[in-house]
Amino acid sequence: MNNIENIKKIIIKKPLKLDCGVTISNYPLAYETYGELNQNKDNAIMVFHALTGDQFASGKNPVTNKDGWWSYVIGPNKALDTNKYFIISANVIGGCMGSYGPSSIDEKSGKKIGINFPVITINDMVNAQFNLLEHFNINKLLCVTGGSMGGMQVLQFVANFPDKSKIAIPIACSASHSAQNIAFNELGRQAIMADENWKNGNYELENKSPAKGLSVARMAAHITYLSKKGLQEKFGRKLQERDKIKFGFDADFQIESYLRYQGSIFVDRFDANSYLYITRAMDYFDLSKNFNGSLSKVFENTKTKFFIISFTSDWLYPTAENREIVIALNAINADVGFLEVKSDKGHDSFLLDVPDFLNSLKNFVDNSYKK
Amino acid sequence: MNNIENIKKIIIKKPLKLDCGVTISNYPLAYETYGELNQNKDNAIMVFHALTGDQFASGKNPVTNKDGWWSYVIGPNKALDTNKYFIISANVIGGCMGSYGPSSIDEKSGKKIGINFPVITINDMVNAQFNLLEHFNINKLLCVTGGSMGGMQVLQFVANFPDKSKIAIPIACSASHSAQNIAFNELGRQAIMADENWKNGNYELENKSPAKGLSVARMAAHITYLSKKGLQEKFGRKLQERDKIKFGFDADFQIESYLRYQGSIFVDRFDANSYLYITRAMDYFDLSKNFNGSLSKVFENTKTKFFIISFTSDWLYPTAENREIVIALNAINADVGFLEVKSDKGHDSFLLDVPDFLNSLKNFVDNSYKK
Repeated sequence: MNNIENIKKIIIKKPLKLDCGVTISNYPLAYETYGELNQNKDNAIMVFHALTGDQFASGKNPVTNKDGWWSYVIGPNKALDTNKYFIISANVIGGCMGSYGPSSIDEKSGKKIGINFPVITINDMVNAQFNLLEHFNINKLLCVTGGSMGGMQVLQFVANFPDKSKIAIPIACSASHSAQNIAFNELGRQAIMADENWKNGNYELENKSPAKGLSVARMAAHITYLSKKGLQEKFGRKLQERDKIKFGFDADFQIESYLRYQGSIFVDRFDANSYLYITRAMDYFDLSKNFNGSLSKVFENTKTKFFIISFTSDWLYPTAENREIVIALNAINADVGFLEVKSDKGHDSFLLDVPDFLNSLKNFVDNSYKK
Repeated sequence: MNNIENIKKIIIKKPLKLDCGVTISNYPLAYETYGELNQNKDNAIMVFHALTGDQFASGKNPVTNKDGWWSYVIGPNKALDTNKYFIISANVIGGCMGSYGPSSIDEKSGKKIGINFPVITINDMVNAQFNLLEHFNINKLLCVTGGSMGGMQVLQFVANFPDKSKIAIPIACSASHSAQNIAFNELGRQAIMADENWKNGNYELENKSPAKGLSVARMAAHITYLSKKGLQEKFGRKLQERDKIKFGFDADFQIESYLRYQGSIFVDRFDANSYLYITRAMDYFDLSKNFNGSLSKVFENTKTKFFIISFTSDWLYPTAENREIVIALNAINADVGFLEVKSDKGHDSFLLDVPDFLNSLKNFVDNSYKK
């Protein structure tokens, strides 16, 4: 991880009692903003990132030199229009882009915290990020939104702060991590932990890096982000810079080469322990658990207006799981809209140029702002 | 790998030119038989195993001490009734249960062949197993059948030997490995190769074992064998021998514990290099490739009667891919039946107690035998 010294961050002094029982305070939260906060302070949108995202939602990410993860969504005249709105995007705690996480330096030892970092939850992430409202002196957000783990944070935010956002747009997510979701995350964790260089999480102390394991974890996750049909159309059985198969274990097929590449570039920008902690937080996510399994009860007090978006070819957080949230909100007569967008791009659709998605997102936000 | 000394095998003297160009001869093929060959020699069924299967299709597997992989299918009065039929089941070349594979001993060096084993194809596997007809002096089989990679071998068998089986029952398979199939196999291979102990495939020479990598590969594959719904119903978010989550990286959830267990027992019975070679053979499978992409042309000369079976919740080899085989056979007016069995058990359905599947399989074989 390079270039993270100059990252924008606030130090949160207020103690936060994590779900695991540990209390943290004086911890950093790295963030970015896009657009300007207006005088009424009623144009603020908080976006939450997914598993491997960070605060660089738009513009150039200074660490990767690539476009921010929501470049299709955030910008002038885009769905989240920076000419109109003030967008706040923070790196979750547990992350590795400047917020308090396993790669933060422990003040006492002067070394990276590593595996001694406390296990966190989606609830903890949201509670930490809530401090940004006070920081910007914002009483109420216009909107909270995000996809995948970002969508889970949206749901958690409204559950925790039922009057702190006018609208909420959870995208391609679920109110409870399914067995298959947990299975894929566990696969990723086991790939990391199987790496000789993981060293029980203390790789930083020994100047090692479990890059191979992390790369395998990323490959596994990447497959789940794409649809079978999308993969077939994009790659099919196309060969990689060769006319014939080579009868060996090099990357004969483009899909192999693509996955290896995705794995290899990921390890340059992501910390293996962060991957463990964040996937764990996702697996622990089960919003109705403290409400006797009633998701309706979770949102009983909210006046927030919901718009839920799913994608037809998303098999990781399929429409059925998004629809459960709609049904729960309907049951308490909450204000909820729902759109299943047709797309062959799988779970990744929320990050890509999918016009129906981008247009409906823009319309909903713009119309809600006017009212 | 224990107890494989007493395994039944033939040594095939006839040279076999593999697709990669290498010619092999005097190589072992391990097999089992169930039931008795009748005097007319018209009651023989050859079954082909899947990726991690072996010749022990029924009865107790002497190496694992578990039931054979097709115990629900093969036995007295079962779908493939050993009171009536003579079942032949061989270990594929490339495998690790006695047939010629990476864990075979090289005669010259006296050491295991390992990564010097030639890369093989489904075509090579089938051509090797065809020698068993001569061995048993069988002119024509009653039936060839198998699921998953076994189904691919069924298709390849009929393509190569259009008059050597009366009927053919490919189950839960595809005529061409899809990009997603290749992706998951590549993931497994990368997990193995990422293991420090893989040693570029020469782990046997150094008395090492890439058990962690192989275990991760197995976990990944296992997730693909089950359906999302099946996983949710069986495991959901049930905790493993605890009342509450423990805020750590042990197996909190039953699904985690289950996957870890599946990984750990697999490495005791399977060779990592065999996993590489067999997945590679599957990825290379593209039956119509040498026929200008026309699957109909592949089967142009066959008189074999087909019955193709798929399962509703199989997302690895979904009904759509099985249906393509039906369509190709229909186009040449071949005799083909097709059944999509309703099951929540995913790709694994063909190995499990799924009555509609077992009954229809039995009826088709019995009716074909009478005629």
